[in-house]
Amino acid sequence: MTGIKFAATASGIKKNGNKDLMIALFPEGTVMAGAFSTSYIVSPTINWDRNILQSGRAPEALVVNSGNANSFTGSHGYEAIQATVSAVADKFGLHKERIIVSSTGVIGEKLPHEKITAKLDELSDNLAEGGLENAAEAIMTTDTKPKYKTIKSEIAGQEVTISAIAKGAGMAAPNLATVLAYFFTDAKISQDNLQKIFSDNIEESFNSFTIDGDMSTNDTALIFASGTAGNDEVGLDGLGKFKQDLQELMITICDTIVSDGEGVTKLAKIYVNGAESKKSAKNVAMSIANSPLVKTALNGSDPNWGRIVMAVGKAREKLDLTKFSLNIGETNIVKNGELNPGYDEKSSTAPYMQGKFVEIFVDLGLGGTEVQATVTTSDLSKGYIEINADYRT
Amino acid sequence: MTGIKFAATASGIKKNGNKDLMIALFPEGTVMAGAFSTSYIVSPTINWDRNILQSGRAPEALVVNSGNANSFTGSHGYEAIQATVSAVADKFGLHKERIIVSSTGVIGEKLPHEKITAKLDELSDNLAEGGLENAAEAIMTTDTKPKYKTIKSEIAGQEVTISAIAKGAGMAAPNLATVLAYFFTDAKISQDNLQKIFSDNIEESFNSFTIDGDMSTNDTALIFASGTAGNDEVGLDGLGKFKQDLQELMITICDTIVSDGEGVTKLAKIYVNGAESKKSAKNVAMSIANSPLVKTALNGSDPNWGRIVMAVGKAREKLDLTKFSLNIGETNIVKNGELNPGYDEKSSTAPYMQGKFVEIFVDLGLGGTEVQATVTTSDLSKGYIEINADYRT
Repeated sequence: MTGIKFAATASGIKKNGNKDLMIALFPEGTVMAGAFSTSYIVSPTINWDRNILQSGRAPEALVVNSGNANSFTGSHGYEAIQATVSAVADKFGLHKERIIVSSTGVIGEKLPHEKITAKLDELSDNLAEGGLENAAEAIMTTDTKPKYKTIKSEIAGQEVTISAIAKGAGMAAPNLATVLAYFFTDAKISQDNLQKIFSDNIEESFNSFTIDGDMSTNDTALIFASGTAGNDEVGLDGLGKFKQDLQELMITICDTIVSDGEGVTKLAKIYVNGAESKKSAKNVAMSIANSPLVKTALNGSDPNWGRIVMAVGKAREKLDLTKFSLNIGETNIVKNGELNPGYDEKSSTAPYMQGKFVEIFVDLGLGGTEVQATVTTSDLSKGYIEINADYRT
Repeated sequence: MTGIKFAATASGIKKNGNKDLMIALFPEGTVMAGAFSTSYIVSPTINWDRNILQSGRAPEALVVNSGNANSFTGSHGYEAIQATVSAVADKFGLHKERIIVSSTGVIGEKLPHEKITAKLDELSDNLAEGGLENAAEAIMTTDTKPKYKTIKSEIAGQEVTISAIAKGAGMAAPNLATVLAYFFTDAKISQDNLQKIFSDNIEESFNSFTIDGDMSTNDTALIFASGTAGNDEVGLDGLGKFKQDLQELMITICDTIVSDGEGVTKLAKIYVNGAESKKSAKNVAMSIANSPLVKTALNGSDPNWGRIVMAVGKAREKLDLTKFSLNIGETNIVKNGELNPGYDEKSSTAPYMQGKFVEIFVDLGLGGTEVQATVTTSDLSKGYIEINADYRT
């Protein structure tokens, strides 16, 4: 067990009476690592949390509400944070400057923090080491299901646990597509190593998927390590398996977020190799993953390779067109910059594209067969338009 | 009259028998300026034309086919260009290295250049100074109507004419969204000045609109000046009105392209001021213009200002949030970084957003009230998804 206790409830911020408030209390000695929205307009909660992370102070609690993003309400935003963390500190005997807060939901409306503080007694009564599903439910906005998972890993021969809760890119008027993801582990690990591992993994998970290319003011991914597993603390060299398992969990959570994206019917992974750098490969993969023409083709089960080529070209990354190749699934379509004369769409990519999971392989032709960037994306469907254009009608 | 002669016909490249081939013959002394796709994967026609432009050679003819993009067919692409320009040069007594060629349509299929050359006699018989509409029709792909316009302008007291034909971002499998635009004027003007004016104007027109953020391998915008108007040749100082009129024509053509975009039901103009530079303002405007969440909100007539704020933030350009403001139409929504307390959506932006033309004003708060960037965009509709995902069914 991680020694981390959870509780969740419905505070009334969400008008439909669904769960909208969760708290996690951390044992002494918990360390934290994380990443936040890189948008230039962020919720004051992001600044509050980033300040705690950068100060190196040990986190004592995490409080998340859904239904209101505590954003774009001027000075009220900070006042709401102060009111919340002061009440939580009082109730649980904590330091307010060690309490992490997140908000997701409607923007421009003042956060009714009194609804949060009115529920602290109830939350306190219900604190328990389980309850991951309830916590995951309490952070949902328009997600169709709660997202949570627990896996086992190992450090220095000692079993450790890693759990995750997350919410995806849902929308309600006027709202933002916020990704919130929290990881909890009982591993004993230094803050430096935890941040190093988490940052590396973020690049291949949360920074490598896209639903609509839009970024929220409130995006947050944090990991808390309670150190209660009893493992020996080891250096980065001894954390290989832990890092790998955490990465798999992070990618699984991201895939779950994409799959539950608005109107999403298909998942696609874009693999790029033969680029002059990892950064260049990532840029090409993102260009394909964000192209509305590629995403609509995916939705229509259409192996429209010309649109993939278009998206590669507009990324303006170095390539050798005479060695450029493109595969969809196991089928080679373009080889050495020319349409493969043996390519027969009807018998290969057309049936393949009917599937729910599509893989696209691009080789930019500059040498190297190792995949340098993998990006996960979704199709773009009429359902997406319905949810985002028509929800008022 | 510009002294430029046009002819158009159906060569059979388009399988539906529609017009798909046009030619324009230029009088001696014609000069040319232009801009091409900045994609790193371009059709060989782009390289051919760019080479002529950069060499400063006077153009003698323009040949455009639709129905086939002459792209991604390896060495055949250049062979098709050679075959075409050689035959045109022979037929009309021209120099093949002065013949501009463009192709738009299906990619990956060899251009049947013999269908083009078989029609040269017919084109020759039909050459006439009118025929702009026929020429505009011959370059259409899935455009719903031909795009052409003629205006009058003035240089040094002498009336001059500027005409335009263009095609927009249509699609047919497997095809690319190619923008082709050609301008024809009888003005006498040096090539240097023509290029200077055209490049400046491109930035505010063809580089300032977006339908789906995708860029073609074949995008081309060219202007040809025949010098037959009889005006005195003047320096840049004397070309102010000409430049302004040309810019208005270029913006009108771009608006026509956006309006005829796939599934487009609304046009929006995004105006940004108070940025640290024009480039920064443009980046913010483009971020808003390309955001699927903003574009679906536009489609749903939803004044979802939170999505506009999100798109501003993710552009990661310098701003002063305490002075940030946002207006939709004449209604102020955000002032000094806070929701305007007097903002009443129902009586202001909700009815306004029902219109076919929407204006969005963003002030990044760094000073200066002059608009630094204007970008034109469209909504994102179910129609777009239908055209781009479902056309095979």
